Amino acid sequence: MAILVVGSVAFDSIETPHGKVDHCLGGAATYFALAASYFTDVRVIAVVGEDFLPKHEAVLKARRIDTAGIERASGLTFHWTGSYAGTLSEAKTLGTDLNVFERFEPKIPEAYADSEYLFLANIDPVLQARVRSHMPTVRMVCGDTMNYWIKDHGANLAVVLRNLDVLLINDVEARMLSGETNPVRAAEKVLAMGPKSLVVKHGEFGATGFFGDRSFAGATSRPFRAPALPLAEVVDPTGAGDSFAGGFYGYIASQPELTPAVFRRAMFYGGVMGSFACERFGTERLQAVTRDEIEARFALFREISHLDSAV
Amino acid sequence: MAILVVGSVAFDSIETPHGKVDHCLGGAATYFALAASYFTDVRVIAVVGEDFLPKHEAVLKARRIDTAGIERASGLTFHWTGSYAGTLSEAKTLGTDLNVFERFEPKIPEAYADSEYLFLANIDPVLQARVRSHMPTVRMVCGDTMNYWIKDHGANLAVVLRNLDVLLINDVEARMLSGETNPVRAAEKVLAMGPKSLVVKHGEFGATGFFGDRSFAGATSRPFRAPALPLAEVVDPTGAGDSFAGGFYGYIASQPELTPAVFRRAMFYGGVMGSFACERFGTERLQAVTRDEIEARFALFREISHLDSAV
Repeated sequence: MAILVVGSVAFDSIETPHGKVDHCLGGAATYFALAASYFTDVRVIAVVGEDFLPKHEAVLKARRIDTAGIERASGLTFHWTGSYAGTLSEAKTLGTDLNVFERFEPKIPEAYADSEYLFLANIDPVLQARVRSHMPTVRMVCGDTMNYWIKDHGANLAVVLRNLDVLLINDVEARMLSGETNPVRAAEKVLAMGPKSLVVKHGEFGATGFFGDRSFAGATSRPFRAPALPLAEVVDPTGAGDSFAGGFYGYIASQPELTPAVFRRAMFYGGVMGSFACERFGTERLQAVTRDEIEARFALFREISHLDSAV
Repeated sequence: MAILVVGSVAFDSIETPHGKVDHCLGGAATYFALAASYFTDVRVIAVVGEDFLPKHEAVLKARRIDTAGIERASGLTFHWTGSYAGTLSEAKTLGTDLNVFERFEPKIPEAYADSEYLFLANIDPVLQARVRSHMPTVRMVCGDTMNYWIKDHGANLAVVLRNLDVLLINDVEARMLSGETNPVRAAEKVLAMGPKSLVVKHGEFGATGFFGDRSFAGATSRPFRAPALPLAEVVDPTGAGDSFAGGFYGYIASQPELTPAVFRRAMFYGGVMGSFACERFGTERLQAVTRDEIEARFALFREISHLDSAV
């Protein structure tokens, strides 16, 4: 089933202890789309500038991602500059040039209207809500957000949260959104804001799924903990969270039904795609991974976390 | 098989967002012994002062812990004062009164000489090495340490590390000991210092086991990730790490042989005992837990981390 993702397609200039890249293809929608493309069809709504060239679009096309919804505007593409140091667990933003993204007005192509799965990547919640309202018959809606929107755009974000099936955020965002330091109580408060389920990402420590009463028909309310793979070399963690979301949602969209077992496997696939994203700068690894490598890493995630694994 | 633990028996005065306790029974050896006592026989070597009363010893006796090695010295028992705030992930030490612990000279009672498992809790590595040398025929040795010894007593600690089967430390200690920020490379460096295996504790995110070539006969070098239980209420995290060690090592000592499967289950039991420790102030919960509750929580740890769990 096709996923429609709305979010940023951008250029990133990144410095990590492993090196430096200038204006490599990035953006939440890009990472999400590449990761999800290994599981299902993906359609992208975004805006880019005149510096977005055929070679950049070719990266998405090579993964059979539908780029009809990527609008060309006059001006430059959104450009983010950041660096990582130490444990590489947090990016330091050195520059955010919104450029054409500042006036982004998502337009949904006719051909996208039958998309059954919608992903609202991290953009202004006003735009998230608008896209959501134009897709009334969508089967499932997942979304992301960040500290900036939580802090200063709470009322707009609340509208989005009310209609989400799954919200994917990190620990800091969960604490900020809920005002609770305890992760279980934070999750309860976030679920009370509307999302049927919540996935809290812990970076190198994996992710925890929290489930409200409406998560599944008659299913568990126990949390679920998915591991992350200890990596000897994190070259560039940019986009790992968006790649997690892509693997997670892509797998869900490839399955006939969302069951607790599918949700768990989706969290593992999320971690798998997030781990690949970290192995090279930008989207390099996500462009070139194979389905066999994905399945082998899924098996590895199982092996390093399950008691009965063969060794 | 009996475990001999050498470490601190202390009084703790603790403040957390859930309240305050004054001079409650604590110390690494106490938490370790209580947690391990649910799996195997435990013998304690420690020193206490005149304020250590029969009612305190009765807490250990009630769990059939052998207290013959707890020496009485004139003066006061080691007293730690600390507080926790925010996410309760780190203690703020407000006072450390070593008292009789300052002149601690571990003496091994004759009756302890046949102990097959030795646990060197977090004390001066000179004392750890001395106890180790007096137990030449011991079957397995595990140990803990902390930033203070890593920073200023590195040469003494190196002697201890050379002869350890398993070292249990936390993320910060692993980074400090190795000088590496990457967790995989940090583990490799620590294993190169001597321990056959390494367990790095991540607090609320569980623990990772790393295995050198000498960990098991012909076994995996893959890491293993054990979850922690998301707790809605962390009353007091004091002793959680020592309780993890007690559950981990107690389970190992109860098994005929150390296999990769036993190591994995031991890491789960470590997390189980650590989670109980957090539920009440001091050792209260560890004194009163039942084996049935332990097994139920072990099953819960499996359920929240395994793909095939029934829901």
